[in-house]
This record gives sequence, structure tokens and C-alpha cells, in this order.
Amino acid sequence: MSSHHIVRDDQEPALIIANGEMCSPELLGQLLEWSPLVIVLDSAIERVLALGIKVDVLLGDFDRGFDPEYYKAKQYPIEIVYAPNQEKTDLEKAFDYLIEKGHKAANVIWATGRRADHTITNLTNIVAYRDQLKIVILDDHSKVFLLPNVFEKWYTANTILSLIPIGKVCGISTQNLFYALTNEDLTIGYRTGSSNHVINDGLVSITHKEGDLLLMECWD
Amino acid sequence: MSSHHIVRDDQEPALIIANGEMCSPELLGQLLEWSPLVIVLDSAIERVLALGIKVDVLLGDFDRGFDPEYYKAKQYPIEIVYAPNQEKTDLEKAFDYLIEKGHKAANVIWATGRRADHTITNLTNIVAYRDQLKIVILDDHSKVFLLPNVFEKWYTANTILSLIPIGKVCGISTQNLFYALTNEDLTIGYRTGSSNHVINDGLVSITHKEGDLLLMECWD
Repeated sequence: MSSHHIVRDDQEPALIIANGEMCSPELLGQLLEWSPLVIVLDSAIERVLALGIKVDVLLGDFDRGFDPEYYKAKQYPIEIVYAPNQEKTDLEKAFDYLIEKGHKAANVIWATGRRADHTITNLTNIVAYRDQLKIVILDDHSKVFLLPNVFEKWYTANTILSLIPIGKVCGISTQNLFYALTNEDLTIGYRTGSSNHVINDGLVSITHKEGDLLLMECWD
Repeated sequence: MSSHHIVRDDQEPALIIANGEMCSPELLGQLLEWSPLVIVLDSAIERVLALGIKVDVLLGDFDRGFDPEYYKAKQYPIEIVYAPNQEKTDLEKAFDYLIEKGHKAANVIWATGRRADHTITNLTNIVAYRDQLKIVILDDHSKVFLLPNVFEKWYTANTILSLIPIGKVCGISTQNLFYALTNEDLTIGYRTGSSNHVINDGLVSITHKEGDLLLMECWD
């Protein structure tokens, strides 16, 4: 699974492997193939190395008492990034690292499942990186990303799309979605747009005027 | 596992079994023991019956083409509640059902894991029921509930507590938490209070002035 080293195009998204539930080997393999850089967060390194994956960067606060130096020898030339800032999650620190290194995009896996607070925090905190990094979070059930104010994409009929407002999102309009919205507002905790679906094969349009709106493409 | 029928005290929380990831048999058993009423959502009934659990109510929109009548015969005297309203999730409809029947509290399991849009929607939508139903969502990793403006509870040292603002929450102050807050704001997507922990065995105090704040007690 170290074939990602064949292609080193920094325009391709970097891959961040977080510390939640593992995804399928198929999804992992697809993403590794095109990633110019693989970052692993904290103690997830144990599960990652067990899969035989070549890792470029190990990042974390390492606060649960394991020794990153051990992995320095084992995965030479891995870069160890000690990131103790307790105001940010390890995932946010990985985003900061990528931005500093000039990357433009990141795919993130293993960021969901297990503890629900991690799932919520990891998914919602991508909104703060709107102008700095194009982030996509993937797991075995869905693909999540932040929508621009005007979004259009071709989908097959019946694709499940969930609109998740992070806070309040105003002036949402959709085309080619079964539960249509026409200049409406969604507010987390009160009215969300979960489990909508595409009517016909073709372009789906989702526009909004204000706020942070996540789209989840779901496949189960 | 049908021992919940021994006690029928409607002051105990009803149990809602949603359609996400299954929890451990231990957690399920503990909750069943005291539940005066067990509601199962939609096609989760298949997995629930396979565990030999006695179900009181089967509720859903049954839009994926399975036949609830089949279960009427199999689980007599089960109540089948057909709830087609597409503006609400099945979990919200179960809350509405309980409120209508005069229940005051509900525990919810199998509401997290699997699809992240369901996890987020299920966890955050409890805030709209603030004045009507005391809701606790449990899984193998954590217990989640909405905080009143003044909250005090005894915890052991190092218990992990996550504060999740649903929208913007203002004027939060804490006592006996490692990352202390003093009249501060948290906003979902921008600044959350995930993975805090208790300093000393004893009372933890969390107060806030405005907004919807979830607490997650985590145990891994």
C-alpha cells in the first residue's frame, strides 16, 4: 500500500489519517494511490503501520505517553511533528501544518465513528478553513465537504445528499433535490436537511446566501 | 432480555432504539431493565428481534419497503405507529410520540455510528425538545445530554467531558475542569470544548447564559 510514492504531485490532496474508526481497505487504497503526502495523527500510527502503509509525517501532542521516537527509527525518514497546543485538535494542527507547507487540499479518513464528540468536532471544524484548504472527510458511508455559495454537480438519481448547517445558514435554494428548498434557512439542532435525495440523473444545484453549509454524499 | 416488563413505572425513561450502530449487550441490558416502554425505529426492528428483545412500539415511515404487519403478528401486542411526516426524522417522531403519551424522559441507543449525518442530526436535534422531554443519548463511548443553564454533578478525576455548542453558546463558566472557561463563548465549527477533563474527584460546575450546550461524558 505504499504506491502513493509513485506520484508526487503537490496539486493532489494530502491524506490525513485521523484516530477514529478505520475505513475499508478499498477506500484507503484509492486515496493512498494519489496522495503526495500522508500524515498520521498521534497513536493512530500503531494501526496504520500494522497495515504496511508508508507514512511521511506523524503529528500529535503525544499526551497519552507513547514514544514517537520509536517510530522515527521504524519509518525512516518520517517527520515527527510535536504539536502540544491544547486549544486545537490534532486534526486542526494537521490542517495548519499543510497550509504552512503550501498545500491546497486534504482528504481526511478515520475522522468519524467511535467517540461522537470527535466525529462532530472533526466534521464541523472544517468550516473555519474555508479560505485556506479544500478539505474532504471520507468514511465508508459518506463524503463530506463545505459548500461554496453556488454549488453545482452531476449526480445519479436517488443519490442521498444531506445538508448540514453549521450554525444558521440563510437563503438556501436547491434544484433537482426531492425535498426542495426555496430561499429557506436551516439551523443546526432545529431544522436540518438530512437525507435528501436527487430526483433525476443530472445537475444538482445548491445555493446559499450566508453561513456554513456542509454537504454529505451518502452511499448506504 | 425482556426483563423490562417487570417494572412499569412511567417515571423511568422510555427506551428508544434507533437505526445506527448497535451498542454492547451490557449497555442494552442495563437500559432495558428499567424501561417502561421500548420503541424501535423502522428497520432496526430486524436487528432488535434477532436479540430476543420484547418491543412495545415500532415506529417509522417504513419507506424502504418492508412490511410492519409481519412484526405485528410476530410481536403481539406490539403497537405499529406509521409516521410518514418527511419534515422530521424517525427519532424526532419517537420523541413526539412519547410527549403525546405523557412521558417525561427518554434514553436513546443506536443513534450514533454508521452514517455521520445521522449521528450529527440525532445528537443536535435533542436541543429543540429542551422543555418537553429529558433526553439522554448513549453509546459504547459516551453519554450525551443537553445542559441546563446551571449544571453541577460529581465526577471522578480525569473523567473526559466534552462541551459541544449547538450554534453559539454565550457566557460559559466552568469549575473543576482542566481547560477552564470564564464567561466565554463557544461556537460550533469555530471554537468547541471537546475533550476537557475533570481535575479532582468532586463537583464539576458548568454554567452558561445563552444558547444550547451539550455535555458528553466519555469513557475511552
